[in-house]
Amino acid sequence: MSGISRDDIELLSGWFGALDGIGANDDGSVTRLGYSDEEDALIRTVADLAAERGFPHYADEAGNVFIHNGTGEGEYTLIGSHLDSVVQGGRFDGVAGVLGGLFVLSGIGESLPLKVGIFRMEESSSFGLATVGSSLATGRLSGEKLHNIKNSAGKTLHERITERGHSASPRKISAVKEYLELHIEQGRVLEAKGLSLGIVNSIAAPVRLRVTFTGRQDHSGATPMNLRSDALVGAAMLITDVERFALAELQNASVATVGVIQNAPNVFNVIPGETALGIDVRGIDLESRERVVLRISRRAEDIARERELDCSVNIVSKSDPVRMDAGLQKKLSACAAKLGVRYMIMPSGAGHDAMNFVDICPAGMLFIPCRDGISHNKREFAKIEDIITACKVLLEYLRS
Amino acid sequence: MSGISRDDIELLSGWFGALDGIGANDDGSVTRLGYSDEEDALIRTVADLAAERGFPHYADEAGNVFIHNGTGEGEYTLIGSHLDSVVQGGRFDGVAGVLGGLFVLSGIGESLPLKVGIFRMEESSSFGLATVGSSLATGRLSGEKLHNIKNSAGKTLHERITERGHSASPRKISAVKEYLELHIEQGRVLEAKGLSLGIVNSIAAPVRLRVTFTGRQDHSGATPMNLRSDALVGAAMLITDVERFALAELQNASVATVGVIQNAPNVFNVIPGETALGIDVRGIDLESRERVVLRISRRAEDIARERELDCSVNIVSKSDPVRMDAGLQKKLSACAAKLGVRYMIMPSGAGHDAMNFVDICPAGMLFIPCRDGISHNKREFAKIEDIITACKVLLEYLRS
Repeated sequence: MSGISRDDIELLSGWFGALDGIGANDDGSVTRLGYSDEEDALIRTVADLAAERGFPHYADEAGNVFIHNGTGEGEYTLIGSHLDSVVQGGRFDGVAGVLGGLFVLSGIGESLPLKVGIFRMEESSSFGLATVGSSLATGRLSGEKLHNIKNSAGKTLHERITERGHSASPRKISAVKEYLELHIEQGRVLEAKGLSLGIVNSIAAPVRLRVTFTGRQDHSGATPMNLRSDALVGAAMLITDVERFALAELQNASVATVGVIQNAPNVFNVIPGETALGIDVRGIDLESRERVVLRISRRAEDIARERELDCSVNIVSKSDPVRMDAGLQKKLSACAAKLGVRYMIMPSGAGHDAMNFVDICPAGMLFIPCRDGISHNKREFAKIEDIITACKVLLEYLRS
Repeated sequence: MSGISRDDIELLSGWFGALDGIGANDDGSVTRLGYSDEEDALIRTVADLAAERGFPHYADEAGNVFIHNGTGEGEYTLIGSHLDSVVQGGRFDGVAGVLGGLFVLSGIGESLPLKVGIFRMEESSSFGLATVGSSLATGRLSGEKLHNIKNSAGKTLHERITERGHSASPRKISAVKEYLELHIEQGRVLEAKGLSLGIVNSIAAPVRLRVTFTGRQDHSGATPMNLRSDALVGAAMLITDVERFALAELQNASVATVGVIQNAPNVFNVIPGETALGIDVRGIDLESRERVVLRISRRAEDIARERELDCSVNIVSKSDPVRMDAGLQKKLSACAAKLGVRYMIMPSGAGHDAMNFVDICPAGMLFIPCRDGISHNKREFAKIEDIITACKVLLEYLRS
C-alpha cells in the first residue's frame, strides 16, 4: 500500500530503538523472559513512550499492563500482545504487536474507547507454559495450578509471580468488546507468496507425543547386524513416516514435527538401547490432526513389533484449535481490500495471546511477514512498513 | 568339556572375589579407570595373589606389570590383558584375561618361560585412546603424541602418566616369542550358537564418520510441510540406510552403527536445523568395509541433494583390521578339539591389546561367552567354568 509517511516510519522505528538495549546479548540476540527485570524494563519504557503521547496506563494484579486513552468505564476494543522473548530471541515477536497497538492508539486518539494490553510471559521458555499473563487475566488458567509448575531450578511459577509483587489470581478482565492482535507470522507463507498481510482464521493447537523405543544396548563392533535390536533405527523409521503422514494432510494444513530426539547411551561404540522422540502435531482441522496422531501411534507400534523393540507412546499435552471471529475476518479483509493491501486468510501455526479471548469476545489477528520466516532467533526481522500497513488496516477497521 | 575340578573353580572365583570391592559403585558396577588409584590397587592385589603362589613381578617404565615364573632372560610366551574398566563397567572385561593368565601360569609352574602381562589403560574412557599401555610397550604409540591427548578436564595423557610416576616413553618390550590373550566376547555370537570358545582370526577396526545435515530452523507450527528443510528427517533416512548397507555385507562380517546423534535445537516447537550423526563402520574384510563407507557417504550426499539440505561427511578416524597368526589359530583349534571343547573361528568386533603384538610376534586370542553379550555394564558376566575351559586349551597348547 502507499500512504506510509516518513514520519510514521521514524516514529515506530524510534520506539523499537528505545527497547533495543534491554536484555541485549553480545551475539545480537535478546533474552527478555516473562516476569523478569528485563520484562519490567520493557513495560516501563513502553509506558513512558505512551505517557509522552498523553496515554496513561494501569496494571492488573497479575502485572499485565493496559495503556488507554481515558475514554471511560464502558466497553472497549483491546489490542494486545507481549514484550517478553525466548532465550536468545529476537526483537519483533510480540513487540511488533504492542508497539503496533500504541501506533494505532496514537492514530485513534480519544475518538473511541481503546486499550493496548501488554501481557506477561507469553513465551514458555522459563516454566514451559505459554501465554501466562493473558490466561490468568481471562480466567482460562487458575493461579492455583501455578504451584505445580516449576522451572529448571525448582522454583514454582506461583513463587516467581508473587515474589515479584504480583498475584497469580487476578480479577478477571471485563468489558472487552473485541480483541485484536498484530503479530509477526513466524513462518514463510506470506514471504513465499509475496504478500504483506495475513488475516488469521484459526490458531492451530499442538498435540505433543513422546515415543520411546527400547532395544538392546550392545557393543557396536561385537554384535553382527542380524543379532541387533537398535532403538535408533526404529526411531529413524518413525521420523521419516511422521513427515509422510503430515504431508498427506497438506491440504488440511496439519503439520507434524519430530523436534526432539534423545538417544542413549549416544556413544560411537554402543548400539543405541533407548531412543525417545518428542513429536509436535498441529492443525486447525481436528479430524485431520487426529488422523496424523493415530497413524503415528500405530506406526510406532508396528515398527516395534517388526523390529522386536519395546515401544511406548504417550500424549504429553493436547489442546484444541481456536477459531478467530468470522465477522472480524470479513471486516478486516474488507478494510485491507479497501486500502489496496494484498492479503490472504491463513491459519496460525503458533499459539498467541489471542487464543485466550475467544470465549470472552470476538477475537481477530493480523500477521505480517518476517524475513525468511525466522523467529525466536537474533535474525528475526520484520519491515517497519509492514507493521504500519497492518496498523493502517486496524485503523481503517476501527474508524469504519 | 569335563575335567574342571571344584578346586579350580574355587581358586579362580576367589581371585575374582579379591578384586570385587575395588572401584565398586553403589549401583553394582565398577569404575576402574586406567592410570588411577583403582587400577593401581587391582595390580597390587593381583601381584599379591601371584606372590602367594611364588610368582614374582616387575613393572616396565609405563607401569605395565609382568608376573613371571623366573625362568630366565630368553624368549618367553606372554599372556596379556588389562584390569581397567570403563565408567560404570563390569568385572570381567580384561580381568578374565589377567586372572586366566595367572591360572595358566599356576598350571605351567616353571616348566617353560611364561609371563602374564597386565597392560595399563586398555579402555578409552578417560582420554579417548584405547590400549595405551600395550601400545606404548610395543612401540606402536610414541609418548610424544600423548602431549596432544586431553581428557574432559583438559589434562594431557602425558601429564597423567608422568604425575603417577611412570614414563610415557618406556623401553620397547622384547624377547616375546608369542602373545596370547583370553577375553570375554562382548557380543552374543557364542551364546547364540551355544559354544563355549571362540578362536579369533581377525580383529576388526573401525572407520568413524561424522555426517552433519544442515537445514532450516523454522517454527514447527508456522511452517507448512512443503516449505521445510528438516535436518533430522534427512539424518533419519541415512540411519535406516546405514543398517541396510551393512546388512548387505552380513556374509563379510562388516557392521555399521549410528551410535551418536546430536540434534539442534532439539525442542518441541522448532524444526531441527542441524543434525549430526556419529557412525562406526567395522570389518575384517577391508573391501567390504570400504563399500559400506562409500555407500554411506554417497547416500548422505544424495539425501542432501534430494531434500535441499547441506551435508558434510568427515572421516574422524580410521584404523586397519589386524589378523591373528594363522599357525596359532590352527594349533589352538587342534587343542580345543582334543579336549572336546566346542569352538568356532570368529572375528573380534572390538579392539584388544593383542592388536599391538602382531608386528612383534605371532599373536592369538581366545574368546569366552559372556551372558546376553552384555559388556561395559554392571550386568557383564562370564562363567568361571568357561574361563577355566579357555585356560585348559591354553595349557594344552603350551604343553604340546
